[in-house]
Amino acid sequence: MKLALFSAQRGIKRSAGGPFGAVIVYKGRALSVAHNTVLKKNDPTCHAEINAIREASRKLKTFDLRHCVIYSTTEPCPMCFAAIHWARIPLVVYGTGIRDVARRGFNELFISNQRMKQIGKSKVRVKPDFMKEECLRLLEGWDQKAGKKTY
Amino acid sequence: MKLALFSAQRGIKRSAGGPFGAVIVYKGRALSVAHNTVLKKNDPTCHAEINAIREASRKLKTFDLRHCVIYSTTEPCPMCFAAIHWARIPLVVYGTGIRDVARRGFNELFISNQRMKQIGKSKVRVKPDFMKEECLRLLEGWDQKAGKKTY
Repeated sequence: MKLALFSAQRGIKRSAGGPFGAVIVYKGRALSVAHNTVLKKNDPTCHAEINAIREASRKLKTFDLRHCVIYSTTEPCPMCFAAIHWARIPLVVYGTGIRDVARRGFNELFISNQRMKQIGKSKVRVKPDFMKEECLRLLEGWDQKAGKKTY
Repeated sequence: MKLALFSAQRGIKRSAGGPFGAVIVYKGRALSVAHNTVLKKNDPTCHAEINAIREASRKLKTFDLRHCVIYSTTEPCPMCFAAIHWARIPLVVYGTGIRDVARRGFNELFISNQRMKQIGKSKVRVKPDFMKEECLRLLEGWDQKAGKKTY
């Protein structure tokens, strides 16, 4: 999670996109580290989790990441949660919740991971509130940034 | 939709991934045409709709596709529906439903676009059953394919 926070900070400095970071761990090591690049890449799908999944898949040469765990500074949005499901990642660990982000002006779909899991009958396990204080401080730091852009 | 069907057929021939195609229309012209490439690219995010959104964003140089419409041979999965929401595409038109695909063995999250829209309070409009017969024939054609792979 520290690596995910570090990557998110780097993304903020580069004005790459929203203040979000994600890391995929495989066999106890960070396989991919990514931040949100929606603005830099002009690509609405470039959330931190999607970027991390794409890099991990490329490295492992398979769409099947069932032996991985994903850490995300904020609860994955429904797009990212569904991508995690498709990638067969069995566990997602996150800090702040979707609500903490939506109130900052992002165009969030208000569907929690728990709800997605329950309605969609997904087996992905979800561990919320991990290092939440640090993840909240990340969002608060972003609040102070001049010229920040939501989308 | 005919272009989306054509692209899906090409994807089947190439064993690129599932039997799905999508097209994004902008100012009355097809801006991007894509099929699923999950297997070819070893990337669980490479659904037809995501591929089409990425290409359209690249061409228009913006994550904001609010002046576009997306056509998809099958109801977008929750990942793709949320991506459409993030891209601000106001209308999605599709043929067959998620159920038609899930019964063919794909690891679908059972959440319809209507449900995603309603729970997530999304303004994306959804037009189902468009050229449904042709889209169903696409899936039936895929059923006959030797060595087809679901994921």
